[in-house]
Amino acid sequence: MTKFGFLGLGIMGSAMAANLVRAGFEVVVWNRNPEKCAPLVALGARQADSPRQVVEQCGVTFAMLADPAAAEAVCFAGGGVLEGLPPGHGYVDMSTVDAETSQKIGAAVLARGGRFLEAPVSGSKKPAEEGTLLILAAGDAGLFEEARPALDKMGKQSFYLGELGNGAQMKLVVNMVMGGMMAIFAEALALAEKGGLDPRQLLEVLAGGALANPMFKGKGSAMLAGDFTVNFPLKHMQKDLRLALRLGDEVAQPLFAAATANEAFKKARSLGLGEEDFSALFRAVKAD
Amino acid sequence: MTKFGFLGLGIMGSAMAANLVRAGFEVVVWNRNPEKCAPLVALGARQADSPRQVVEQCGVTFAMLADPAAAEAVCFAGGGVLEGLPPGHGYVDMSTVDAETSQKIGAAVLARGGRFLEAPVSGSKKPAEEGTLLILAAGDAGLFEEARPALDKMGKQSFYLGELGNGAQMKLVVNMVMGGMMAIFAEALALAEKGGLDPRQLLEVLAGGALANPMFKGKGSAMLAGDFTVNFPLKHMQKDLRLALRLGDEVAQPLFAAATANEAFKKARSLGLGEEDFSALFRAVKAD
Amino acid sequence: MTKFGFLGLGIMGSAMAANLVRAGFEVVVWNRNPEKCAPLVALGARQADSPRQVVEQCGVTFAMLADPAAAEAVCFAGGGVLEGLPPGHGYVDMSTVDAETSQKIGAAVLARGGRFLEAPVSGSKKPAEEGTLLILAAGDAGLFEEARPALDKMGKQSFYLGELGNGAQMKLVVNMVMGGMMAIFAEALALAEKGGLDPRQLLEVLAGGALANPMFKGKGSAMLAGDFTVNFPLKHMQKDLRLALRLGDEVAQPLFAAATANEAFKKARSLGLGEEDFSALFRAVKAD
Amino acid sequence: MTKFGFLGLGIMGSAMAANLVRAGFEVVVWNRNPEKCAPLVALGARQADSPRQVVEQCGVTFAMLADPAAAEAVCFAGGGVLEGLPPGHGYVDMSTVDAETSQKIGAAVLARGGRFLEAPVSGSKKPAEEGTLLILAAGDAGLFEEARPALDKMGKQSFYLGELGNGAQMKLVVNMVMGGMMAIFAEALALAEKGGLDPRQLLEVLAGGALANPMFKGKGSAMLAGDFTVNFPLKHMQKDLRLALRLGDEVAQPLFAAATANEAFKKARSLGLGEEDFSALFRAVKAD
Repeated sequence: MTKFGFLGLGIMGSAMAANLVRAGFEVVVWNRNPEKCAPLVALGARQADSPRQVVEQCGVTFAMLADPAAAEAVCFAGGGVLEGLPPGHGYVDMSTVDAETSQKIGAAVLARGGRFLEAPVSGSKKPAEEGTLLILAAGDAGLFEEARPALDKMGKQSFYLGELGNGAQMKLVVNMVMGGMMAIFAEALALAEKGGLDPRQLLEVLAGGALANPMFKGKGSAMLAGDFTVNFPLKHMQKDLRLALRLGDEVAQPLFAAATANEAFKKARSLGLGEEDFSALFRAVKAD
Repeated sequence: MTKFGFLGLGIMGSAMAANLVRAGFEVVVWNRNPEKCAPLVALGARQADSPRQVVEQCGVTFAMLADPAAAEAVCFAGGGVLEGLPPGHGYVDMSTVDAETSQKIGAAVLARGGRFLEAPVSGSKKPAEEGTLLILAAGDAGLFEEARPALDKMGKQSFYLGELGNGAQMKLVVNMVMGGMMAIFAEALALAEKGGLDPRQLLEVLAGGALANPMFKGKGSAMLAGDFTVNFPLKHMQKDLRLALRLGDEVAQPLFAAATANEAFKKARSLGLGEEDFSALFRAVKAD
Repeated sequence: MTKFGFLGLGIMGSAMAANLVRAGFEVVVWNRNPEKCAPLVALGARQADSPRQVVEQCGVTFAMLADPAAAEAVCFAGGGVLEGLPPGHGYVDMSTVDAETSQKIGAAVLARGGRFLEAPVSGSKKPAEEGTLLILAAGDAGLFEEARPALDKMGKQSFYLGELGNGAQMKLVVNMVMGGMMAIFAEALALAEKGGLDPRQLLEVLAGGALANPMFKGKGSAMLAGDFTVNFPLKHMQKDLRLALRLGDEVAQPLFAAATANEAFKKARSLGLGEEDFSALFRAVKAD
Repeated sequence: MTKFGFLGLGIMGSAMAANLVRAGFEVVVWNRNPEKCAPLVALGARQADSPRQVVEQCGVTFAMLADPAAAEAVCFAGGGVLEGLPPGHGYVDMSTVDAETSQKIGAAVLARGGRFLEAPVSGSKKPAEEGTLLILAAGDAGLFEEARPALDKMGKQSFYLGELGNGAQMKLVVNMVMGGMMAIFAEALALAEKGGLDPRQLLEVLAGGALANPMFKGKGSAMLAGDFTVNFPLKHMQKDLRLALRLGDEVAQPLFAAATANEAFKKARSLGLGEEDFSALFRAVKAD
């Protein structure tokens, strides 16, 4: 059986690695702050002292780092992945990074004789714990199949999307839909309020029909209550809209609705709501 | 037990009336073309020769007519509802009509000593047959309670939304959300296609996450296949967006996303897609 | 020589009538408040006691009333235009009224055997005084030619735009351009300010190039100074955008830029700026 | 008297340099293809064999290169500006380049002990010939004053806009206004056509009022005639809108109108109009 490596034990990574261990896989973990390895070791994982040590003893290694800088450091720094990469090793970066970072890491892994898969996920803490993430993989198709038994324990669905870059791109397109849906949703709630309807009834009506979706259900009541506890920061939502628009620009696809949503989120940023949850768009839409 | 009247046995009305009969209610039906009464009579309904005859022998009458003109005719014409309305009779108009028509009918019913409820529905043929419509009622609250046992057989949820006009208005707001969601959905599919992603995979990814909703699921594959079989005509979707924007205008609620969606549907109309399903917006978004 | 009638001596009308008198025409004036006739009489006009008396003694009568209600009253009320209209009399309504009012008055004049021209103007007090209005005439072409010598004294250019309704419609389209130009202008000033440029320099640069226009020149400095003295109320600008969009809806012409400008002005209305000058859009665009 | 250098004798540069020579300045010219120097020499200029030779014998040198790559090559290549730069030499780059290129060249000039001014121009061939360009200068204020006598012969107005980068930024903001005005103008012409008005009359009405501007005047008739002879390519207009939006993103200034115009130009690009004049937006707006 393949021995799996896992680099990065933050909120997401620790939950994902735990699901691998619980599924009976042999897992070697590493984290920059080694104390976070303890719960995984208690579950049955082994701990390594560096990313290099992890890749040296595993056939496939997963990485779930906080941001592009961390994803690069784990690869390129001393004691990093590239130093120890055995020929044919499969490196699966599940961090959310931009296309450039992904290409850079992928190229370096390939240049060292390894194989590379980008596999960003859709979903946050709870789906990570429950193993119900969506996994958007792209790059080495053989590696995808090889990693699949593990991916299937971390997510409820894994997609192989073709050439490197498609994973990140798919995530952008999905987030663009999310931004557009939030924009029209916020406007509808505001219109209901101003128009003399009970916006809570609007939520119920929406919940009962063809437009019902977990996001409306999960965010609607909190929005009406003015509760914008951060789940996905508004400024990140707007950044993803901007990147999706850039993609549209490159391929000459007009995106009127996405562009309008982007400006609405920029309006919210200009009102100081960038660090709040992206549902705080509602406050900007209502502002008068 | 209340005896219920039912006026209008088109696709929607015949299914709804049938659900009442099957539930064991005593139902008196009428239709302009009397032949359509036969299946209902076969189920156990009684047939009347005019709207007047229906209201004369029932405590509460439901109407489900094709359009505002039909809804008015059934009330105001010779042999119509108003001629026979007994004092205190409850008239429940479930047709989709504009606010003015609803107000006009309501006022006439009240002037004759009756009670009035507008109760447009959300959902089409299949939910009507299965009794899973959403019913958006407004007007006489007592009548709503009295009609409820019947409403509960026709719909899976009935909402009482307050003063007359709120039913129609709620429907507009819901349809505005539908239009906005379709706009961003069509853009995302077009962007995926042009950007080198497989749009069918986008559908799968959307289906697995927090944005999953029956509309995306029901329309997505057909849209990619270029199948725009009419369920809800595009020109009606655009009309509802226009009316929702008018409502926003009246209460000074800016609606950037809805306005952009409205123009996108107008673009589709200008391309001759007004009679197709509203999902044919996809063709306009892709056009190049 | 034709004797001209003039009904309505408000700010605009008194200036326009004075230009006719000064040009040597024989002019008979009437105003609801007769005291306002004095300065015209001093210039050489004759005064009548009712609209009826005016039309009875003139071949062509101009009307410049404050609003649709006044325009209708002058025609339809006792002692009004219709009571005295001689066969073949030319009635030229220069008031800014909606298409419906214009049609109604025109139809009544025709039914009485008169001829009708709608001729709304573009321009306000100063151009009225200087005789430099733009006159947007539509309806009876023969009457246009007959009235031309007088129109040429009131405006610097008179356009004959074809069938009745085209005058009002042309004015809407022009105002739509005005709204769209103000929207991008306000955004540019706000962007310059936030981006560290001197917005007064932006005004100078714009004034020197291919985009230079009297509106930017006339409004720019005041906008930067926060001076929104009413010239054309913001709520009227937004109303005209709404009507232009309705026209686009009727003929299936998508108008993304106009729709966006309309929402921006609605945003300004929602911030309580409806009664200020339409250049107060700048405050809404800057709001953060 | 300062001896001026001039690098780059394309359509713009040759006209600008000629204006300097005609004004009586001593001018040393260089062009990559030396044959283009002949007309200038005929006017009285001296010719040098390299950018290095130019800066070595002049106090202030102007550059007008085709694009960022050419602007960089003239500085950094062998025989380039940097090799010969005397201490205190004033280098004025009038090419239209992005902010990064401008910063890079400016930093290199300063590092070599020179002084730097960016001075992109607004206006094309004809204003260059007539000396009526708008010059948007930023960087070294002393150099601006020193260069002014020359700038005043090339342009009708020269603006000093502060710190390096502001010249390029001002140009973006102006072009954003141009894009937004073209968007609403194209919509108005299309609406007039579809609504039964004569769009040529719309042009006349606009020409007579407060919105009159050289761009509408210069482009309108050609647009109606379907003549989109390239003056400023549509794809460049869209690029500038994109860059202006990026600037708005950086400073959190929402720009709904500019974003909508940007999508409209992207729509035009998707229809294959990118290489035509930016006024070809009209074809995209009309498309149905």
